Parts: sequence; C-alpha cells; structure tokens
Amino acid sequence: MSTDSLGIKKIWQVNGRIYGDLPPSDRGLAYGDGLFETMRFDRGQCALAAFHWTRLLSGCERLSIPLDRRRLLDDCQAFLANLGSHGCETSGLIKLIVTRGVGGRGYAPPTPSRSTLIWQWSPLPEESAENETGVALSVSPVRLAQQKLLAGLKHLNRLEYVLAADAAKAGAIPLLLDTDGFVVESLSHNIFFTREGQVITPQLVSCGVEGVLKQYALQKISPALNIPMREESVSLAQLMAADEVFIGNSVRGFWPVTLLASNSKSVRWPIGNVFREFHSTHQAFLKSTHG
Amino acid sequence: MSTDSLGIKKIWQVNGRIYGDLPPSDRGLAYGDGLFETMRFDRGQCALAAFHWTRLLSGCERLSIPLDRRRLLDDCQAFLANLGSHGCETSGLIKLIVTRGVGGRGYAPPTPSRSTLIWQWSPLPEESAENETGVALSVSPVRLAQQKLLAGLKHLNRLEYVLAADAAKAGAIPLLLDTDGFVVESLSHNIFFTREGQVITPQLVSCGVEGVLKQYALQKISPALNIPMREESVSLAQLMAADEVFIGNSVRGFWPVTLLASNSKSVRWPIGNVFREFHSTHQAFLKSTHG
Repeated sequence: MSTDSLGIKKIWQVNGRIYGDLPPSDRGLAYGDGLFETMRFDRGQCALAAFHWTRLLSGCERLSIPLDRRRLLDDCQAFLANLGSHGCETSGLIKLIVTRGVGGRGYAPPTPSRSTLIWQWSPLPEESAENETGVALSVSPVRLAQQKLLAGLKHLNRLEYVLAADAAKAGAIPLLLDTDGFVVESLSHNIFFTREGQVITPQLVSCGVEGVLKQYALQKISPALNIPMREESVSLAQLMAADEVFIGNSVRGFWPVTLLASNSKSVRWPIGNVFREFHSTHQAFLKSTHG
Repeated sequence: MSTDSLGIKKIWQVNGRIYGDLPPSDRGLAYGDGLFETMRFDRGQCALAAFHWTRLLSGCERLSIPLDRRRLLDDCQAFLANLGSHGCETSGLIKLIVTRGVGGRGYAPPTPSRSTLIWQWSPLPEESAENETGVALSVSPVRLAQQKLLAGLKHLNRLEYVLAADAAKAGAIPLLLDTDGFVVESLSHNIFFTREGQVITPQLVSCGVEGVLKQYALQKISPALNIPMREESVSLAQLMAADEVFIGNSVRGFWPVTLLASNSKSVRWPIGNVFREFHSTHQAFLKSTHG
C-alpha cells in the first residue's frame, strides 16, 4: 500500500508488476502517446465495462496502438486479484493508461511496438449531493483546438484541460467551447440539454471526449425511456435557450445544471424531469448490475 | 548503464536519483502536463545552452509550472557529474523533461506543486551528410490544430507529431501545415526560406515549436551576416515560390531542402548561398564554444 501527498492510498501495476516502474522513455510520458479510462468498480464489477472497453479498443485502433481484448482483460483480472493482498477493496476508482510503450525514432512509432498497461486504484470519491442540488457552469476562457484526428479520443494530450481547470472560477465547472465558439462539453463531463422534448448533446467531430455515459445514454437510456436523443452542432445561444441542462460521466452519473454563466449573461434552470428520468434509469441500472 | 530495445545505452535521473522511478500518477504521463528540451552536449558543454534554458523557463512561466533557474542548473550539474561513473561520456544527447509533478484533483493542478525533473542521456546521433546532400520534404496529411495558449511551447502533448511521423513518406521529412493550410514547420525542425535576399520563417502564433536554433538565427546569425530575417504568416504557395529553403534544429544544425512535394505539385531547389552562410556561421559558433 502506498499513499500519495494527500494521504490517499494508491496501488498501481505497470505491465503486470505491482508497484512496477515506468521508464522515463515511455512514449506516454514523452509525447502523451496513449489513452486512458477512469472506471468505477463496485465489488469487483466495473460499471459500464463494455462501453469502457469498446472506447479504449477503438481508440487504440484509431491511433494504431496494438492492444488485444484478451491481454486487456487478463491484465485487468490480474490487477483486481492483487488488490485484496495489498489492503485495497475491490470497490474503487480504477484508472487505466495504455501507452504505445518504449522506443521508436523520435516521434516515429516503433515497429512493432509493445504497449504499456498501467492500472491505478484509488478509493471511490465521497458521495456528493450534486445530483440533488445541481451544479453551476461557467464558460471557460480556454477554447479547445480543433483536430479531427483526435476528436472524441480519451488520449493523454490534456494540457488544454489542465489550463481550463486552472482558470476555473471557484464553485463552477468550466464549460468548454471550441475555437469557433461551439459547445463541446463541461470539464470531465459530457453535456446534455432538452429542447421540445428531445435530448441533444454536442456532436464531437473536432474535439472533446466521447464519454462512456453519453454512449450509454444514446444506446440504452433514450430508447428505454422513449425520449428521443441526438447529437448535433450546438451554439452557446442554443444551449442557453434550453429547457433543461445536465452533465454526466461514468464515475459520478448525471448532475443537473442550475446555472450557466458567461461574461455577458447568465441563465438559471430548475432541476428538470428529463434529468430525473435519466438519473433514476442510470441508478436503477447500477443497482441491477451490482445490487 | 542501461540499454534500450535497440541496444542503445541510456542513463536517466528522476528528481536527483539516477535510474529513479517515475510514479504513474505523475501529471507528465497523465496529461502531458509538462515541457521538454533535447540538447546537444559536447564534452560537458551544452550547445546554445542559454537559449534552451530561456525557452524552458519561459514555457514553465506560461504554464505556471514552478521551476527556478538555480534548481534547474544544480540538477543539471548533478546529472552531468554522474555520467562518468555510469560509463557515459559527457558528449551526448541530453533530454530534459519537466512536469508539474504529482497531485491535484483531476485536471486541476495541485497548489503548491513540486515539478519533476527527468534527465536522459543517450549517445549523439551519427554524423550525417544531409547538410551537404539536402533533404526532401513532403506535405503531411496531418494538419496542426490551432491553440494560441500552447503555440511555440515544447510541451508534452505531441500526439499530432506522432501521427505525422507515422504517416510520413519514406525518405521525406513531413512539412506541417496548420488546419488553415499555413506553413508551421517541418517535423522536429523549424523552416526558413529566402525571398529577395531576406530570410523568412513562419510566425508561430497558433501552433508549432519555437526552436532554439530559430531564435539563435534571429538574434545572432542574421545580424552577424547582415542578412535581414523576419517572422511572418507563410502560405504553402509562398514557400513554393521561395528562392531557397532550409530547415534546422539545435541538435542537427541547418539542412538545405532540395525537394518539396505536395499532392498536386513538387518543387526543387539547388543548395543555396544563404543556407551555406547560415550553416557555416553556426558551425563556427559551435567550434568557438567547444573547440
């Protein structure tokens, strides 16, 4: 067992070795040449596991990082099996980083390459009341650059997000726009809003992270509730004119947005019925899987 | 002494410890939250050291990564002093990575933060003949996204460059354009061309790396040769209409460009006199410093 600077216990595994070392020449560090997933595990079960694995494997394919499902699942099982003997429960937040590994000539990837798999366990975050009280968003001064080749990927090139978090107003979650002013997501969450009974979420064609909870909402919640949902290009004005707004990610679930502030304007919303239905459907799913 | 997968000997130092470990929770790996320098050392002397330190420290300031000059120079001296006892010469390629260190809540930087300093030594690259034979450039299909907040920095978010290297045509160095089609640089080098006796290099306001050799050329070579040099916005057509073209970085020096190929067109140049003057001035400087 290891504790970090905040006294939070941590355990990690690098390429199958608990507390293994990462060589500083790993391309994940050198270039951010890799991907990550942050997953909620309850008693050894990963919430929305299939969606996490699908996103990760399709991201690896887009970046030509070799990783097969068998190695991924075996490595995960080995890590989970080790948690108990290191004083960690099998409930926790598990972060997986997959890098292209070591080697290559400068930026050029090595051929063949052997990807590095890094698992990190930390305790689940404290239960919080945001799903009942709602959250405030504030338009970030940091605009996301547009790169179609990387759009949607949960890759390791996250400096813009660090700058946005650093520039965030206290008590508000940054709302991220792209460099043309279109809505992308809120920091660490996808964003959803309703208009005339439909749920809309930004289409992530030039930047942003394709969230696992967003995919789950599109593929499972929307059909189950018979509430139509679609992805489209969204301006800030369209978001501000929404009937209700909420955000979500796979670790925390859905949170209603009750305030959105920009430099020139702010808008308030009550907590809406569509949010409540999405939230309770997700909660019921988690209970049915892990209950 | 350690050797990598290609059998090349390596030595590294993490926060003062030779062959030290990098915790996988370091923000350099997690988010690419850091900067790097790749420096040519000849018998313990770093070529263009003042330019490297200036770029690094100003990059740290722009990203609010704490690093003072004293710690940087002391850490460098300690690493150099250790090279001999680990069987390495004090001539070599030295790569320094500075990250924001460990900690913080997700993307939000920790306050205060303690930066991580990682030094890596590898042998100098083989002498090559490119400065006499010239090189070919090929317009990359990967366009660089535009983010003013990161433009010019030698930061760790380099996935676009990995993709460009991976997509490169054999025998040609990728020429990188931004998403609006303006010329930025060639992979791992800045680019220079002449028009009516002036040297022009792209202004890096929305992407690209501000090279140390480029700064040296602007501040020292151009005045010494009395050849005017300036930065401006450069279209591909303007580059193709140049009188002569060359590229350069601090490790390899200047290389003349003899061929530039795009999908629709290719242009050839002879090796020009301005290149020869820049190259010999730079060579003379290296000899005077280290000779």
